[in-house]
Order: sequence, then C-alpha cells, then structure tokens
Amino acid sequence: MSKRVVVVGAVAAGPKAAVRIKRLNPDIEVVLIDQDSLISYGGCGIPYYVGGDVADEKELRSTSFHMLRDEHFFEEAKGVTTMTSTRVLSIDREKKTITAEHVATNEEEEISYDTLMLATGSEPIIPQIDGIDLDGVFSVGNLHKAIAIKERITKGLVGKAVIIGGGAIGIEMAEAFKDLWGIDATLVEFKDQLLPNLVDWEMADILAKHLRDNGLEIFLGEAATEIIGDDSGKVCGVRTSNRQIEADLVIMAVGVKPRSQLAKEAGLHVSAGGAIVVNEHMQTSDPDIYAAGDCIEITNLVSGSKFFAPLGSLANKQGRVAGDNIAGIPSTFKGGVGSFIMKGFDMSIGSAGLTLNAAKQAGYDADISLTSPIDRAHFYPTQAISCFTLVFDRRTRRVLGLQGIGPMGDGVLARINGAAPLLCEGAVIEDFNNIEMAYSPPFSAAIDSINAAAYVADNLCDNRMRKIDMREYFDFMDAPEKEPDWIMVDVRHPKQAEPFIEKFGEKHWISMPYDEVRKRYKELPTEKTMIIICNAGSRSYEVQRFLDHNGYTNNKVLAGGINVVRRMNVDWLPET
Amino acid sequence: MSKRVVVVGAVAAGPKAAVRIKRLNPDIEVVLIDQDSLISYGGCGIPYYVGGDVADEKELRSTSFHMLRDEHFFEEAKGVTTMTSTRVLSIDREKKTITAEHVATNEEEEISYDTLMLATGSEPIIPQIDGIDLDGVFSVGNLHKAIAIKERITKGLVGKAVIIGGGAIGIEMAEAFKDLWGIDATLVEFKDQLLPNLVDWEMADILAKHLRDNGLEIFLGEAATEIIGDDSGKVCGVRTSNRQIEADLVIMAVGVKPRSQLAKEAGLHVSAGGAIVVNEHMQTSDPDIYAAGDCIEITNLVSGSKFFAPLGSLANKQGRVAGDNIAGIPSTFKGGVGSFIMKGFDMSIGSAGLTLNAAKQAGYDADISLTSPIDRAHFYPTQAISCFTLVFDRRTRRVLGLQGIGPMGDGVLARINGAAPLLCEGAVIEDFNNIEMAYSPPFSAAIDSINAAAYVADNLCDNRMRKIDMREYFDFMDAPEKEPDWIMVDVRHPKQAEPFIEKFGEKHWISMPYDEVRKRYKELPTEKTMIIICNAGSRSYEVQRFLDHNGYTNNKVLAGGINVVRRMNVDWLPET
Repeated sequence: MSKRVVVVGAVAAGPKAAVRIKRLNPDIEVVLIDQDSLISYGGCGIPYYVGGDVADEKELRSTSFHMLRDEHFFEEAKGVTTMTSTRVLSIDREKKTITAEHVATNEEEEISYDTLMLATGSEPIIPQIDGIDLDGVFSVGNLHKAIAIKERITKGLVGKAVIIGGGAIGIEMAEAFKDLWGIDATLVEFKDQLLPNLVDWEMADILAKHLRDNGLEIFLGEAATEIIGDDSGKVCGVRTSNRQIEADLVIMAVGVKPRSQLAKEAGLHVSAGGAIVVNEHMQTSDPDIYAAGDCIEITNLVSGSKFFAPLGSLANKQGRVAGDNIAGIPSTFKGGVGSFIMKGFDMSIGSAGLTLNAAKQAGYDADISLTSPIDRAHFYPTQAISCFTLVFDRRTRRVLGLQGIGPMGDGVLARINGAAPLLCEGAVIEDFNNIEMAYSPPFSAAIDSINAAAYVADNLCDNRMRKIDMREYFDFMDAPEKEPDWIMVDVRHPKQAEPFIEKFGEKHWISMPYDEVRKRYKELPTEKTMIIICNAGSRSYEVQRFLDHNGYTNNKVLAGGINVVRRMNVDWLPET
Repeated sequence: MSKRVVVVGAVAAGPKAAVRIKRLNPDIEVVLIDQDSLISYGGCGIPYYVGGDVADEKELRSTSFHMLRDEHFFEEAKGVTTMTSTRVLSIDREKKTITAEHVATNEEEEISYDTLMLATGSEPIIPQIDGIDLDGVFSVGNLHKAIAIKERITKGLVGKAVIIGGGAIGIEMAEAFKDLWGIDATLVEFKDQLLPNLVDWEMADILAKHLRDNGLEIFLGEAATEIIGDDSGKVCGVRTSNRQIEADLVIMAVGVKPRSQLAKEAGLHVSAGGAIVVNEHMQTSDPDIYAAGDCIEITNLVSGSKFFAPLGSLANKQGRVAGDNIAGIPSTFKGGVGSFIMKGFDMSIGSAGLTLNAAKQAGYDADISLTSPIDRAHFYPTQAISCFTLVFDRRTRRVLGLQGIGPMGDGVLARINGAAPLLCEGAVIEDFNNIEMAYSPPFSAAIDSINAAAYVADNLCDNRMRKIDMREYFDFMDAPEKEPDWIMVDVRHPKQAEPFIEKFGEKHWISMPYDEVRKRYKELPTEKTMIIICNAGSRSYEVQRFLDHNGYTNNKVLAGGINVVRRMNVDWLPET
C-alpha cells in the first residue's frame, strides 16, 4: 500500500472524495468513517420523504441505478474501506493518527493516516429554550429523525405541527406536513420575513402569501420562547412572543452550524463562526488535513468575504476538488455565490449572490430593480408572471445578486443559473443587458426576464428612472393621509383603474391611459407628487420619461407595478 | 426639432431602437418605416399561431397589456412617426436622404435623415426548383403567409403537408400541422440530420425519434428536387432524390438570409454571405447609418469569427444598443454564442456555442462528452433523463459548446442559460466543473447535469477515460462481424443485461455486474476489446479505471450509455 487516506464523515463531500481518490489512484487505501449507521444519503430529500413524494428512506441513500449506498456498496463497488457507527474522538497530528470509537461496543481504535479529510458536516442549531427536550420536538439533522417524524405521522399521531424557523428546510417541512398529510402546520420565524438571508422582503412576502393561500399559518417577527409539554412529557404547544400555538409535533429548523469540534480540538484554524478554514485546494491549516462540505467556510465570489454555504451541491464539488488534490491532481475550488432554489407548493423561488440587505451591510451603494415580467412569449398559452429583484451597486454598476419567484417549474432556475456564472466574474449591468439567454416563445420572452431586469437597473443608474419602492408605497397605502400631496396616476386601461378610483377616490387615484398621455398630459395634477402606476412598471417608466421631458418632473414610478402588489400580503386591494 | 432618425424595418430591432431613442431623447424625431402593413409582430410565434396555441394573429402583434402594436400605437403611445406599407427604394448617403414608395399608390417620397437605421431583417431562401411557384407552396417569411396557411387549414383544405427543411422553423411548423390539426406532415431535410448547424447528430437523432414517435414522417439526406402540381396549378406533391410524397400544402423552410439589398446598393460594407457589417456600436461602414437584427452578422464570442444569428432575442438587444448610440449613450453589443432552445412535442432541445462539427471546422482539437443524467434528484418523482453534449478543445481544455435534449419544460433551458455566459468568457472545463447551478431535489441533482458533463470532459482530457462514440458503436452493432474481437461487457444489473445476451449471444455480450467487478474481473475476456456498457456511462468509467489499473487496458466505455441508445433511431435493441 502506497498511502492511506482517512475520510471522516460519509454523507456528501466525504464519499465523493473517497471514491474519486480510488478512481484516480486505486493504489491508495481509503478509509471512510461515519458515526452514523446510515450514510451517503440525500439530506436535502428529507422533506420529500416526510411529505411522501419519496416513499422509502432507502431511496434517499440509493444510487440512480437503485443500489443501496451502504458500507457494503462502498467496500465492494468502490473499494473503499467503510466503517459506520464509528465515532472519531480525536486527531493526533504529530503521530498522524485518529482515535475512533465503535459506537456499539465503545471499543477504541487508533488508525494512522497519510492524509486526513474532514467532512464532518453541519448540525442543527438547537436554541436552549424551555421544553426543547420534550417528546415530539425534532430537528431534521439526520435520517433517523426523519424516519421518526414520518413514523409519528403515519401512525396518525400528528394533527398539528409547529415549525420553528422560516428558512428553506422549515418551509419545505411545513409544506410536507400540509400538502400530503393535511396536518395543520404553523411556521414561526423570528425575523420579519421568510428566507431572511436568501432573498429580500418583496420575494419573501410573495412566497408567504402563496404559502398562506395554501393553508399554512405563518407568524413572522415572533420568537419561540418556550415549548410546552403535557403531564406525560409530550409536547402540546409552542409559546411565542405574541401567542400560544397548539402542537403535537415541533420541528426546530432555525439553522445549522458547522460541526467542527474535532478540527478545533486538533488545533486547526477554525473561523469565529465555527467553520473550518481551508484554502482553494480544500487544505486546512495542516497541509496533511483537508476539509470539505458543510463544516467549512468558502469565499463569496461576489463580495470576496467568507461565508457559510451548507449545500449538497457545493459539498460534492468541494469533495471532488479535495479528492483530486489528495490523489495528486492540482485542482481548485474558488468559492461560490450561494445559488439557491426551492419549491413552495406551486411556486419556485431562487437567488444567487447578495441580497439588498447583505449588499448594504457589505458597504455597497446598493439598489434593486424590481420587475414582474411574463416568463414566456406573452401570446404563448402557458405564460405566467414571475417577479425578479436584481441587486446592483449604483456607483460601479456591478451586479451583486438576482432573486426570483414564479410558477413551479424550472423557469426561475433558468434565470438564476444564467446569472450565477456572471456574478462570479464581477459582471456589470451592461453584461446583464446582453446576456444571451436562449429564446423561443414556449420558453421565454424575446427580451428575457434577466435582460429586462438589467434594463431597469441601467435606467435607474443613469437616473432616467425614479421609483418608489414597494415598502414606501405600502406605508403610504396604509396611511394615505400622511402624504396628502401624493396622487396615483394609473396608466393602465381605464377599466383596470376603475375599481381603484372607486375605492380610494379621485383625490388619491386617477386614470390616464398610457396611450393618451402624449395628448392629455396637461390635465395631470402636476402640483402633486404623481406616483405612476401600471402592471409591470414599464409603461409607467415610459410615461415618466415623457413627463420629465415636458417639465413635469414631480413624479415617481411604482417599481414592479400592480403585478407585484397583487402577489403580496396586502389587504387594501379593491376586489376586481 | 433637433435631429431626425429614420428606421427602416418595423418588426423587432427597428421598433426597439425607435422607442428607445424616443425615451432617451424625446426631442429626436423618429420615423419608422416598413413595407408591410403588419408590423412589430412576434415572428417566432408563427408556428404557434398556425398550430392553434395562439388563436388570433393579432396576439402576435399585441403588447403584453393587450394593445395592438400598429402604426397608431407607435404614433400615440410612443411618439414615433410610423409609415407602414412604405417601401424604401434607395439611400442617398451624400444627401442623407432615402427614397420611399407608398405601396398602395406607387407615390415616391424623399425623406432626409440625420441618422439612418437599417433593420431590414431576413428573408426566406427560396430554392429555384420546378414548381416553387405553385399554389399551395408557402414560406413562413411574414405574417400574411401565416394567415394564408392557417386559412387553408381551417377551411379543411390541408390533409397532407410536406415541410422542406429540418431547421427549427420547419420542425415547429410540422408539429403545428400534426399536433392540433392532425395533418399528415412529412419533413424533408437535405442534410443527414435535423437542426444541422445547431446540434450534433446524437441530439438531432434523439429529436428525430421523438418526432417520429409523435407521428411525423421524416426523411433525412434527401433533397427536394421538384414540387409537383395538378392541372389546376395547385401543389399535389413533392419529389425528392429518393421518393415522391403527396402534399396539398408545401412549406419551404430551408433557411433565411439577410435582407441587405438596400445596404448593398448604398455601398455599405456587406459580407460575402450578404450580411451587413457593423461594429460593436451597431454602426455600418457609414457612421451615420446603423444596422441591427436579422440583416447583420455578429461576432461569435466562442470562435471570434463572424456568424449570422437571426433571432428575435438578439434583434431586440441589438436594437437597444443601436438606439442608445443613436441617442448619444455609448453602448456596445459584443456578439453572441447562438443560445438556442425549442420545443418538439414533449421534448425540449437547446444549444449554445459551437457544435462538434463547427468546432472541428474552426480548427479546434474538438471532442465531446456525451452524458445522460437524471435531471432532478433521482428520488424525486418527476425526475427524468436528459442527454447533454459538451463540446471542448482537448488541447486548451476550453469549453466550446453545450447541447441538451430532455423533457418539455425549462430544464434544458436552465443548463443552456447557465453555460452561455461562461462560453462568452472563454471558460475551460474546470470552470464548468465548479459552475454553481442552483440546487434542490425538485430542480436538479446535487451534481448538476452541467457539472457532470464537465467531469466527463475532464476525465477525457486527462486520458483517464477512453470511449467509443455512439456512431462507432452503431456501426459495430449494424455489422458485428466486422469487429470479431469486440465484446460488450454489461455492468448493469444482470436482469438488464439478460435480453441483450439472449439477442446477441455470449460471443458479443456478457454480464459482469458493476459491484462484482473487483472480485470477478479475472473472469473477463481480456484478450478481447471490451466495450463497457451501463445506462449512463458512469459505472462503465469506474470499471474502466479499475481494469486499467489491473493491467486490462484493452477496454473502452460506451459514452452516454444505453440511456442514449434507447432514445435514438436504432432497430436492434432487444424488447424488454
């Protein structure tokens, strides 16, 4: 044997590296160790297993050709020595050994390595609130928890579930409960929006409305303060800062953190946030120890700073790069932009790069273009509206991020995937103007949603377009008396404006159809601040350009238009 | 009035530039001229109008907010002086005037310009074969033809249609005839594959099989030599190099060419292929004359050479850039990679960059990776197989193109859109290894199809993988006796191998399950050339690595695997 590589952790990055090393150099002895009995599973599939889309947990740990990826598979098909139910207790970097404990027997074993790879993954953050240990409180940290949750459901023990945490996993679990099982599911999120670090509030609000329309109860800006149990020690409710919610099952999904205790104790460089620090070759501060997957931090290719991006897709890429380098092929993983996509009932929501919030915090002169384009040729029968937010820096015109929400399918994905490679390259708005998304009527509009979003950003940066943001607009609609000077100029078809005029009165809402503005603009109440309103924002912009040119500059465009408003949680829309 | 801009051509690039100029500088007088009475229509929508997805042709020339884009719309809503049914006869560059003829009256008019923009589009190539002028022979060059075709169909006059040309428009028209109207539709293509310049033969062959499965008759490698008429002068058939086909309607869809006569006669620089030559600002050889859309050639950002890419999406981008420059905002259009997508019944097929053929002709040391990945997490219920071809240069490892075919939906689009921006940047395989496509189980596999395609290319370039191409394999299967030394080693489940062994005999086809190779490889007929076969090619590659390492190097992998074979036009597959 020329060399022994020990890989700790056998879910995603670990197995990927292990088998890659064996393929690159079958002479290398590879030992794959995991504390769990179940390994190499698709953790991202857990909500679909709980929800019933995936019937058997074995499917989550099978290959696409239906072989179970257990220790025998790795031994026989891959030639990797595989030790499950074996916990690595410590690393001796001097001696280049690890000490492992066989969980069943508590027997300890010392194993020497030439190269060590840590793929210890992440673990759920468990807030230390009262009742956290009650029977019926679960995290979704591994497959055993998922199996236990599903067992309770199938036994009919779950009628009401509370999910604490409005991130991707929380939302997916809530949908899983509600959609197939009809369980009353309530989501509680501490921050004032869903998916707080992944999208800005406009996209999150559209998602929240859709989830509510599908029967989920959602409470935002509420902290879960206590989990309540009955006399038998079983969970029966959740107390939040605002209310008490009945529950016979509680899911803790407030986030995950890198599992890096082993690395820390071995004296490896670990970040303040607890992530193992690696270079582009996936090497830790000890050149004989590599790390990859959810336990590390990576470079954000937009901002250049480090971030924690626990995603199965990245873990696999990092595992491959680590494997290459361990086997002697120089290879690099430069970082990521956090490309993200998820399903929420009949919608899909995705993002890449920085949110507006994150961009501002990082010091950019950040702004957004909010658009609501039709996702295919407008004459094509399956067309529908999606909403996009492009985040950019006004000073450098650099594009910092893209977010989108639209009908379920791969339409939003296609735009996120189109944007992600450019975000890595430091692209500016002009690059996005001309990004060449594939076109034909069943797939996109001739001007793709990404191009359209960039056009608006371009017009904003050049100060050809002045907008009010949705938040500002909602604040006004909640209390119009605060801005007595504002008036809505609705440039849509008069029939569309009618119910709004009826509801809000001509003091606040008037109609001036788009194609009549050139003739009739002198009728406009130019002494007021005119908020120009249409469905998508584009007609409003055209009208703005015309009015500005004619000296009526006291006007602003409602960015995104009524298309966006209709998809958000507002209670003041007239019935139409 | 400060300045007058005359725009010739009012379909896509022309109107886009015209309205952009008015928005940027309302002081500029913009005159939009078209020889047709119908303008600003979505020409790419014609097959969907003929097929019935779009009920009324007016939808093709309406805005998304249901306003008809006729001359009144451009005048009133956009402030653009619009002259329809007006043909521009000549340009006097000295005097800076054009001479236009009003089609209805034959009256001529001279119009002066400060800046002229040519957006004269493309026109169908009409091969001069006998019978081309018969009643019932149509091109799809404009909306009038589309209306006339649909009228014949709705009157019940079309029972059998022949489409000459297997490009995108030909295929879309054939589907339109067959799918809704039940018309017997036959496609005749001179080259030996469909979509000859857009994809390589493997993808084209998969599409052809799917179209045939949906009832289209397809004849490849056949030239239409004559269109046959009856005594009344109506078309009744098409003669090809191989046969005679009945038809009461014939569509000529052999391609389009730039409409550049006007430019040529004005002495502007026009390419050998007839396309107007422009710089990055869309300026022709006369700095006061711009051109954009289907009448120009653009830079191929992969090869650096010029190409003709008549696409509505590019026309719009170019129109915007031309408009910017004309209105005084410096702006550039650098070129394109020919991103392409289309629907064919229940499949979608797309590409970007160079095909293998084009890459070889351009002098690259080009090769492909052919893969057949599952398009979502393999455990997710809607998962399906797609097929991808990544074209790359073995010497520089530069990625030159991507092609894909899969289920209808935006899945292939999402990969083409992901690849296109990187192709422009001159990305190499390693960039594609790590390209960060968004992931969750309903949308993709943890290793996205693009990453998987790049991994295979990586292994090929490093000579870790040796393959036989599909063509080579098909040749063998057609005449196995020619290579008596070859034997298929099927590493799938023995049940999957069984019907193949039964059909071809153990002389040609043996079973050696993937997970038993490490134990049983000495049983293999290593004196023969072993073609290792699995469903997708990945297990075969693993087995190849192992066999090579053990000195059994006389083996090759069937790239793409049985997944690809099953989707192609082969008659030798055993029934299963």
